[in-house]
Amino acid sequence: MALIVQKYGGTSVGDPDRIKAVADHIARTVRAGNQVIVAVSAMGKTTDDLVRLANSVSHDPRGREMDMLLTAGERISIALVAMAVNDLGVPAQSFTGSQAGIVTDTEHGNAKIVEIKGDRIQEALDAGCVAVVAGFQGVSTAKEIVTLGRGASDLTAVAMAARFDAAACEIYTDVEGVYTADPRIVTNARKIARITLEEMLEIAATGGRVLALRSVEYARNHGVKIHVRSSFTWAPGTWVVEEHTDMEQAIISSVTHDTSEAKVTIEAVPDQPGVAGKVFRALADESVNVDMIVQNVSMQGHTDISFTIPRVDVGRSGAIMEKIVADIGARGYQTDDKVARVSLVGAGMKTHSGVAAKMFETLAHENINIEMISTSTIRISCVVREADVERALVALHDAYELGI
Amino acid sequence: MALIVQKYGGTSVGDPDRIKAVADHIARTVRAGNQVIVAVSAMGKTTDDLVRLANSVSHDPRGREMDMLLTAGERISIALVAMAVNDLGVPAQSFTGSQAGIVTDTEHGNAKIVEIKGDRIQEALDAGCVAVVAGFQGVSTAKEIVTLGRGASDLTAVAMAARFDAAACEIYTDVEGVYTADPRIVTNARKIARITLEEMLEIAATGGRVLALRSVEYARNHGVKIHVRSSFTWAPGTWVVEEHTDMEQAIISSVTHDTSEAKVTIEAVPDQPGVAGKVFRALADESVNVDMIVQNVSMQGHTDISFTIPRVDVGRSGAIMEKIVADIGARGYQTDDKVARVSLVGAGMKTHSGVAAKMFETLAHENINIEMISTSTIRISCVVREADVERALVALHDAYELGI
Repeated sequence: MALIVQKYGGTSVGDPDRIKAVADHIARTVRAGNQVIVAVSAMGKTTDDLVRLANSVSHDPRGREMDMLLTAGERISIALVAMAVNDLGVPAQSFTGSQAGIVTDTEHGNAKIVEIKGDRIQEALDAGCVAVVAGFQGVSTAKEIVTLGRGASDLTAVAMAARFDAAACEIYTDVEGVYTADPRIVTNARKIARITLEEMLEIAATGGRVLALRSVEYARNHGVKIHVRSSFTWAPGTWVVEEHTDMEQAIISSVTHDTSEAKVTIEAVPDQPGVAGKVFRALADESVNVDMIVQNVSMQGHTDISFTIPRVDVGRSGAIMEKIVADIGARGYQTDDKVARVSLVGAGMKTHSGVAAKMFETLAHENINIEMISTSTIRISCVVREADVERALVALHDAYELGI
Repeated sequence: MALIVQKYGGTSVGDPDRIKAVADHIARTVRAGNQVIVAVSAMGKTTDDLVRLANSVSHDPRGREMDMLLTAGERISIALVAMAVNDLGVPAQSFTGSQAGIVTDTEHGNAKIVEIKGDRIQEALDAGCVAVVAGFQGVSTAKEIVTLGRGASDLTAVAMAARFDAAACEIYTDVEGVYTADPRIVTNARKIARITLEEMLEIAATGGRVLALRSVEYARNHGVKIHVRSSFTWAPGTWVVEEHTDMEQAIISSVTHDTSEAKVTIEAVPDQPGVAGKVFRALADESVNVDMIVQNVSMQGHTDISFTIPRVDVGRSGAIMEKIVADIGARGYQTDDKVARVSLVGAGMKTHSGVAAKMFETLAHENINIEMISTSTIRISCVVREADVERALVALHDAYELGI
């Protein structure tokens, strides 16, 4: 008897009919001889609606009370899913994050898992029940209700899969798997059957929306086998697995893009030790998440530092930047929110040269200017004009022959 | 420094503007030098909406999963109220029933309180915080989430007031207090300034919708002073207090009515010991709540037994009645759901004779037929045709000179 973890996102449980379809799939999985733990997100736009309510009664809703509010969303969906499964004659019980023993640190709104107790889940499984666990939530070491951050229902599923050594962690969503590029833009994008955890990490970090980054990190650290699939077609999706030497490696797995960031450039920074540290410490202290960082070579004792930050943080970063510029004696700073990032991800590029050159040539051939470049061993990212990003995506997808 | 418990019902927190008005009142109560515990119901029609969702995914939603679902409603409202209070510069923390230490038995959907721990509430109060507690819910001795039954947010408030020895338990609602009769029917009905707990019990039991019966019972058993008030006008309402000898007692406090019941008559029941026990044991075993019971004097070894049951139970009581009739050898039974009950309640009637006679005369004068009569020391109830009930109410209200 295998243990399967299944995670259903907000669109998968968006209305009663969707919930019944999900319950039917859970019941079939049980009848096929498996034990099943289910992790569920809040229905459809419930979380957004709750955030809107909070903003209508408070100027700055957050922390403890915000977590109390938002966790109501999954409470509704787990109860409904458990009821619907019970209704099909398969016993099921719902569990809040707290009841499931998901113990976290005390950072409201973005808590980190420190331990999965899971005694009650084990009891439910032993009693022949499906355990339906609320995604996105836990209980802190201070016994307060916390949320794990947006998109963290994936994390709940992966953490459960790790704790109970599941045969597979099936992440059900509204797409069929991980694609070679966003199929809404690149019409001949192909579903990838198998991808390594390292590639999935880079895809999640560079704009691929299918899996939340933290859940992929957790899966890598705990050896969880993820299967990304559709709850609308139930077709086999993408397996995200550890790299094996016998795995045939595509040079490039996927072309991703991200239009959620802005580029900040600090001009004429004195080229002295410790300056970069000052800049990014100041941003980190204000919880501004800095992503790509590029520093040019020094010219006449000065250099430019460019980096990307989430566009939503552009407003509040202004004051921080003013202060940084004054502190380090730079000339000034510029913010540009009309940029986009396009990235190539592929474990095979480790052992193939010329991948980067071909990327730059392809973009040049399309007359697309590259504003920033950064690389990892299995990824190359270029910042381009936002207006050029779809053309860049299609051209790169073609150049590396990723299509169907 | 006094400790005040305030309870806000669904309409009082029905939308963000209402929540802000409630928060403002809580903040003013704190600034007037009081400690405050707040009990809150789910917003507006939230509970009904959740029940509808449950019925759309399950043929028979109930028990553990139904409680998991419904408790989401108060979770939303307590978080929003706490946020709104915080937003006014008054520290507030929300607590689920479980966090508040409301420990119950294990009867899902209708759990009984067995203990109020309240350590976390005490800590919040000691820290200068308003404690906002979810009404209607608790945690069972089996550590499961339970609900206390419909209308039980009043009970949560009264139980908190008892546990913390509050100076007052203010029940805020959408009417200004307890009236001499339903003001929608009797236009000159008068708000009652003070009423005894015994009278309030009879009013709650005979159709007065302002306070849930169980909360009044709990208040009487624990000596809680209730003040029923409006969260729309904030005017002083009705104090529900223990009877004092120096309290000037109105003969009649209130005329109530109830159109939610049906009358069942078992005909020609053999007049033998044990027959009534059989009848009502069979109904109790099926959880049919029997209210007024009247047995006529025996005629030729047979008697009729009449009683009232909730109209919603008429359907399923059919099979039970068939079986009872066969078991006890009665002639048959009749169900009549076009009846209503009109009641006079008044602690003063203990010491005044002629109250009942005047009631019967008044109804006779209006040509209203009385089908059943039952009395307690401070109440007289008559079952009449439903079509006559409003006329009966107005006539009795006038006859006892209860109006403005």
